Parts: sequence; C-alpha cells; structure tokens
Amino acid sequence: MGKLTFILVFFFSMNLFATEKWGIFEIELKGPKVDNPFTDIWVTAEFKYKNHLYYVDGFYDGNQSYKVRFMPEFEGKWTYTIKSNNSKINASSGNFICTPPASGNHGRVRVRDTFHFGYDDGTPFYPVGTTAYAWIHQDNDLIKETLNTLKENTFNKLRMTVMPKYYGRYVSNEPPFYPFEGSEQNGWNRSKFNVDFFKHLDKQVEALLNLNIQADIIIFHPYDKWGFSKGSIEENQLYIKYLVARLSAYRNVWWSMANEYDIMNKPDSEWKTYFETILQSDPSNHLKSIHNGKGWYNHSSSWITHLSVQTPFLEKTQSWRETYNKPVINDEFVYEGNIPFDWGNLTAEETVLRFWTLYTRGGYGTHGETYEHPKNILWWAKGGKLYGKSPERIAFLHQIMKEAPNVGLVPLHTEWNKAMELHKKDEYYLFYYGNSQQASAILHLSKDKLYTLELIDTWNMTIKKLNKLYSGTIEITIPQKPYMAIRARIN
Amino acid sequence: MGKLTFILVFFFSMNLFATEKWGIFEIELKGPKVDNPFTDIWVTAEFKYKNHLYYVDGFYDGNQSYKVRFMPEFEGKWTYTIKSNNSKINASSGNFICTPPASGNHGRVRVRDTFHFGYDDGTPFYPVGTTAYAWIHQDNDLIKETLNTLKENTFNKLRMTVMPKYYGRYVSNEPPFYPFEGSEQNGWNRSKFNVDFFKHLDKQVEALLNLNIQADIIIFHPYDKWGFSKGSIEENQLYIKYLVARLSAYRNVWWSMANEYDIMNKPDSEWKTYFETILQSDPSNHLKSIHNGKGWYNHSSSWITHLSVQTPFLEKTQSWRETYNKPVINDEFVYEGNIPFDWGNLTAEETVLRFWTLYTRGGYGTHGETYEHPKNILWWAKGGKLYGKSPERIAFLHQIMKEAPNVGLVPLHTEWNKAMELHKKDEYYLFYYGNSQQASAILHLSKDKLYTLELIDTWNMTIKKLNKLYSGTIEITIPQKPYMAIRARIN
Repeated sequence: MGKLTFILVFFFSMNLFATEKWGIFEIELKGPKVDNPFTDIWVTAEFKYKNHLYYVDGFYDGNQSYKVRFMPEFEGKWTYTIKSNNSKINASSGNFICTPPASGNHGRVRVRDTFHFGYDDGTPFYPVGTTAYAWIHQDNDLIKETLNTLKENTFNKLRMTVMPKYYGRYVSNEPPFYPFEGSEQNGWNRSKFNVDFFKHLDKQVEALLNLNIQADIIIFHPYDKWGFSKGSIEENQLYIKYLVARLSAYRNVWWSMANEYDIMNKPDSEWKTYFETILQSDPSNHLKSIHNGKGWYNHSSSWITHLSVQTPFLEKTQSWRETYNKPVINDEFVYEGNIPFDWGNLTAEETVLRFWTLYTRGGYGTHGETYEHPKNILWWAKGGKLYGKSPERIAFLHQIMKEAPNVGLVPLHTEWNKAMELHKKDEYYLFYYGNSQQASAILHLSKDKLYTLELIDTWNMTIKKLNKLYSGTIEITIPQKPYMAIRARIN
Repeated sequence: MGKLTFILVFFFSMNLFATEKWGIFEIELKGPKVDNPFTDIWVTAEFKYKNHLYYVDGFYDGNQSYKVRFMPEFEGKWTYTIKSNNSKINASSGNFICTPPASGNHGRVRVRDTFHFGYDDGTPFYPVGTTAYAWIHQDNDLIKETLNTLKENTFNKLRMTVMPKYYGRYVSNEPPFYPFEGSEQNGWNRSKFNVDFFKHLDKQVEALLNLNIQADIIIFHPYDKWGFSKGSIEENQLYIKYLVARLSAYRNVWWSMANEYDIMNKPDSEWKTYFETILQSDPSNHLKSIHNGKGWYNHSSSWITHLSVQTPFLEKTQSWRETYNKPVINDEFVYEGNIPFDWGNLTAEETVLRFWTLYTRGGYGTHGETYEHPKNILWWAKGGKLYGKSPERIAFLHQIMKEAPNVGLVPLHTEWNKAMELHKKDEYYLFYYGNSQQASAILHLSKDKLYTLELIDTWNMTIKKLNKLYSGTIEITIPQKPYMAIRARIN
C-alpha cells in the first residue's frame, strides 16, 4: 500500500468501517500535485460482496483529495480494491460492514408494477413532485427557506438543475458558484471543475435526502447565458462522469438528462451517447428520463426508465402508458401562478384538477408555482415560499394515493371523457369527475362484492362515507359541482 | 295549358304573381289519382331569369296535389315551365315578379371570407347555434314553448333532426307523426311518405325562419328505434329528394347529412352518393356538412361547405382551418348540464369558455343543454325551456362578434396556449385568456397605430374601457381571475 494516506468518511453512520444499506460509503485518497487532477488521474474502486462486483469511479474533490462514493445494496461484509493510473493511489484495498438500513431509509426509488414506483425495500412511492429548477443557485438564506418550505409540504420529488438558470425577466442573478474554472468573459475551462460548486450540490442533494425527497437532477438545460450548455460531446461526457461519480451514491438521485431537450439543438445520437455515459458510470443504476419542450423523445429507448413529459394534453396519458409500458410523469403541465406567460398561470383549482386527472389516468403530475413576487423569487426557479392553494390539496391526493392498493392499479382507457377511473379489479375503484357538474354518477362495480363508498370533494378535501354498501352497476347522487371523486373499497 | 288546375301560394308576400327575393314561390298542380303519387309521377319546373336557368323538383303534398317550391335569387320577371311524366301536369307555364326582399330578409347564409359566414345580401352571420334534435317531434305545447324560448334567446342556428329521436333514458316518447306510411309492427313503406309529417316539418322550419334562425337539418341519425335509419341506398335517395324538394326553397335551411355519421355503419361511398343526391336536387345550393361521433370525415370533399365537428379538443381548431380552408363549427363540444354522461355535464363556465375559445381560435361553437328534468324535457333533445347560465353569456359573445370587423379576422396558430388571439391586422385584436388567472397580459399591437383597449369579463359580461391609448408591445394589468379578454380597436 506504499505511503498512501487514506481516510474513511462515513455518512449516516458513526460506526467505523460500517455503513447502512443504501447509505454512502466514502473513501478518501490523497494524490500527488498534478496539472489537472480531474483528467490527469483516474481512480476506480472495485467493491465486492459475495459474487457481486461493482466498479465505481472516483472523483477529485480538491486539496489533492480523491474520493470514491458507493451505495451498498447488500448487508454484510464488503471488500474493495482501488485502481488508479497513479501509483500513489493504485492498489489500496479495504473492507467495511454494511449494516441494516436505519429507520426511514427505504433505498432507491425504482419502477414497480410497470407503471408505478416503489422503494428498494418494497415501500410504495407515489410521486408528487415539485419544481425549483435553480434553488441551489441562490443565497444561503433563500436555500434555507426553500428547504424549510419543502419540510412543511408533502412534495417528495424536486426537479432541479445542476447548472445555474437564466431566464431574463425572472432569473437574472449570478449563482454563488460556477461549475468550471474560468469566467464568462475569459471562457470556461471545462476540464477543470469548480469543486466548491459540486460540494454545494452534494450538500443540497443530501439535504433533500434528509427530507425524504427525491432529487430529479437535470443534467442539461437550455436556459443559460453563461455557455455552460455549449460543451462539446467529450466535454459533456467528462461533466456527466464527474457528476455521476459525485452523486450516484445518494439513494435519492434520479437522472433527468435534460429539461426541454428538444430546444437544445442536439441530435438524438448525442443524447444517446450521454445516456450511455451514465449507464456505464452509474453503479447504482438510478432512474433515468428526458424532458421535452414541444418535441417528443422516443421513450421506448431501453435507457429510459419512465416518461418525464411536458404537455397540457393530459388525455394522452393512457396511450403513452400503453405505448411505452413505463410510468408516465407529467413534469410540466403548466404551473400554478399568475404570470402573463402561458406556462405559468394556472389557478389552484386547475392545478389540482390536472394532478387528479393525471393520477386517475394512471400517471403522475409535478407541481410548480409562478406567482409574481416583488423580489422575483418565484418558487419554480428559485424556491423560497409557496403562496398557492394547490400544495395542501396535492397532499390530500397523496394521502388518497397511499390508501390505494400498491400494486395492480390501472386506469380505464379514455381520451374524450372528463370522468376518469383508476381501479384494481374487484378490490378498489377511484372515480374522478374533473370539472364536470354532474348531479349523479353511474358506477360499474363488481356485482360479486360489496363496497364501501366515499364521496370525495377534492377541492375542499373532505371525505364522506356513505352509509349503505353497494354492488354492481349503480347510480348515486353526488353534489352538482366540479372536483368530485368517489372511492369504492371492498368492504 | 290544357285543363290543368293550378294555384299559386305565396309565402312572405301578398302580391299575386310576385314573391320577394329569397322568398318562396310555390306552384300547386292537381294530378290524377295514381297508385303511388310519390313515385308514379314526377314534376319538375324550369325557372328562368335572363340567362339563369334553375331546375326545381316538385313533390307530392297529398290530396292529389303536386307542388314546386322555388327561392328566386334575382329581382325582376321570372318565367317557368312545368315538366312531368304525367300529361295532365306536363307543359304548363307561368311567370312571376321577384320583388326586393322585405326588411329582415337577408337571403341564405353562405361561406364568406373562407372561414366565416355571411348572408346573401352581405350582412355578416356569426353562428351561435344551439341543439334541440327532436323538438319538432314533441306535442304542440312543447313546440310552442321551444319557439318561445328561441325567441327570447340569441341562438341563430338550430340543429334538428328530420327523423324522430330515441334515446332510452331521456327520449322514449312516440312522435306525433311518422315519416312513412306503415307502422313499427308491420313495417314502413319507404316509398310512401307521410305528408302530414313533412308538412309539420315545413311549418317548423318556417317558424324558425320567422325567428331568423338557421335550421341545421340533420337528414340521418343513429338514435332510432323505428328503423327509419335503415333504408336502402335507393330508399334513402328517394327520401333525400323528397326532403330537398320540400325544403330547399326555405332560405334558412342548412343540410347536415348526418349526426354521428360514423356510428351508422355506412361506407364513405354511400355518404358521397347522398351528398351527390343533394347537389343534383337542391337548386338553392344550401350549406352542407356532416357531423362525426369519434370518427372523422374527409372534410376536403368538395361537397362539404364547412366543418360541423364533434370534439372536446378545441385546440385543433386552427389546424383544421388550415387543412381544409373552410369554416369550422364545433357543433358538439359537450353540453351544459348535470347528467351522469360525459357528453352532457359541463358547467356554464366551461360552456362559455369553450364558446370563447372556439371563436378566438377562428371557429364557432354550438350550444346544447342537458339538465335533468322531472318530465325528461331536456333542451338538447326536446326543446322546452333553458335553465342554464351560458345562453346569456353566449349572447354577450355574439355581441362582441358583431362588433368585430366582418372580414379579415384570423386567429394566431397555437395549440398549447390558453391565451388565444383573433385579429385583423393592425385594426382589431381580441385576446382571450381562458381559465388562466394571469395578473397581467402582454399584447403585441401594431406600433404604427393607436388603440383603444377594453377589458372584458366574459363571465360577468362587463366591458371596461381603459383611459389611455396604447401602441406596440405593451403589458397591462388585468384582474387575476379566469375568463378575461381584452379587445383592442383602432382609435
């Protein structure tokens, strides 16, 4: 092992040489001074558990320090060996114990039951996401406020960009850190990362992890004035590898290849290259998606785990499920807000309507908020506080989701209808009537079972249980107003 | 002229041998007793005005009486000659004077400015239609009530079926008349029309004419329990010819080939045959369309004058304009009502939203109403009274339509946007914000002109004129609530 200095740092566990399952095991290695530590030296660790082998790329973290982060998936004894092109670092080895996960640690979120999600340990995960693209690129007070808002709300997924965001009217501030060495005037050195920028990113992803929030990490996006989105393919691959090396051990990471990929003027082959770069370097195999503007990606591609679409045409949800056999998340169906741009002025009523519509069509929605703000702190970009009326109602829907069967839920296929139906055959039915004002509802329940019916006012967040039990095809009176739903559960 | 008896009957004019332009000139001829006067004898009149020649089929009207009805389009002296296979009728001739149209008589409605409509005399026609499919098949009191409701409202087009309608839960009454001789039990004689049935139809079309309402006459429809929709091609052609001979002289007639043609199981070639039958027999060349269920007709066909579609996907309106270069009327975007079926439970708010959306997308909408009724009198099928809140707001929109330039209005092409724009370049702009709650609006007006701006609350039916004049690209504050519009007119 020569004169190598190495330090083990543990997250989530104070036990030396131990880390909990789905926690982060981190190795730190000191290297020599070199011209470019990001490219001159590579470090890889081989982690071994019984016949499972994981190759994990390390990354330079400043101060002559190289790190390898790894998320163990099996409890018990692991060993590892370091490989490097630098003889000072190469060939060190060690071991650690993977202990059972702590309470609240359910592992990664994975696709489950084809169209839905669940954690590694089997706990269901029902995505109710929100969006604060550039929240990490704000000052510390605002970041704290954002985290506090997230803590007080139910959102369990956050769409966020790695790179700072520029959006003229609403987002024009410089970020506290830039991702590369250099400057806007003199150009960026894309092979020299700013370690402080990425340490800051790590910290916020960890803060989300502590709030049980999935970080939907957007790797590329077009809302850029600095030129960060303009790298060559090789430069971008270097960036992706660095990002993946730093973040893949965080169990709450999802990879969103791009926001509005189709307005970034890259050919499909380039996006494919970037997905392959992730596939090759992410040992934890996180969820992967790509988000469209008005274009459309071929979500059949094997590297896409779920759809992360932008569209106001919610009635397509069932078709996309059927076409791609993957979960459908509508990550941008227009935000609640009052701005003069069409993508950000939904009423809270319409926002909640769209959330319910997506869910009862067998998909999931993602929230965002764009109310004009005297200091231009719009949640959608900068985080801060939420002012809208939809979040508490989305939380109410999340409760309904959690009370549903966690496998076997399917929607009826319909495009024209305002009335939606999500059900598990003979066991559970959720009927949603959108903005209809029908005064009665005809339900087709199984005739062989008895059901308890509940009338749900999705806007006023009330659930009224009916006294009788019901069976077969029935018609029941409902309040003549929008946003009603009915839940039928087997008695 | 032999021993022929003939009587001239004038509608809309008391002058003997005179009829007003676009009025009805009617010739009555007595024929011999024959086995089937509908098929054994044919009568045609050749009407001549200068070098204009019109061939008009007559029809049997009972009591050995044959009639020819004609709508003259030119003022001055007309002559005519009768042709018939019956020597008693053949070869009679006569003449009449076509006088100027009376006040309120603007002629037929035609397509104008590619996507819009206007009367023969140049008066613009902005369709704000409604639907009472089987109103003529109800008892006299209800028919009177329907006409009274129409009189009190603004609707200027009425979708109505020739044949009675059956629709289980809501429409199960027998009509006062059947179209053919025979009975449900013993079968119908499709070559022997029930003259009383058709006289009743004439009378109601005339009643609509007196109310300045276009009769959108639906020739075939599938909601049938009597078998009226089951004729052979030849039988159906006989029916169409008879219908056209009776009604084509009424200037307020529009031909709607079918309601939900695609669920009637007829090949396209058959529908084409029926359109050709109309084209060959209608000397007044009325507007022609066909209405879909969930299917789609090739509206490029030369015989289609305008689209009469059913769809909740209003965002397609501009595309259809561009594809077909014809007016687009969405005759069924779901009705205002409270029934448990998806086609009839819109709120009034959503109904008005759809009307405005269609108009500002460059098309037109059609109303219908389906509130549950203790006696099952739903306006959509039987007429009667209106209970909803949309009609007065549709009337308000009609007023806005009438105040717009009557040629040159075009919409912006957009599918995703809630914000619509209908404009005449540099002269007139109507911006509509749907159910958005934007607190301001960015308007792109011509920078070379000054505009008066009015803030329109389409739900509360208020128009507030702003004090300043505006020009170029501007942003103005608007109330943060749905259903707002802005009108900009050149100062």
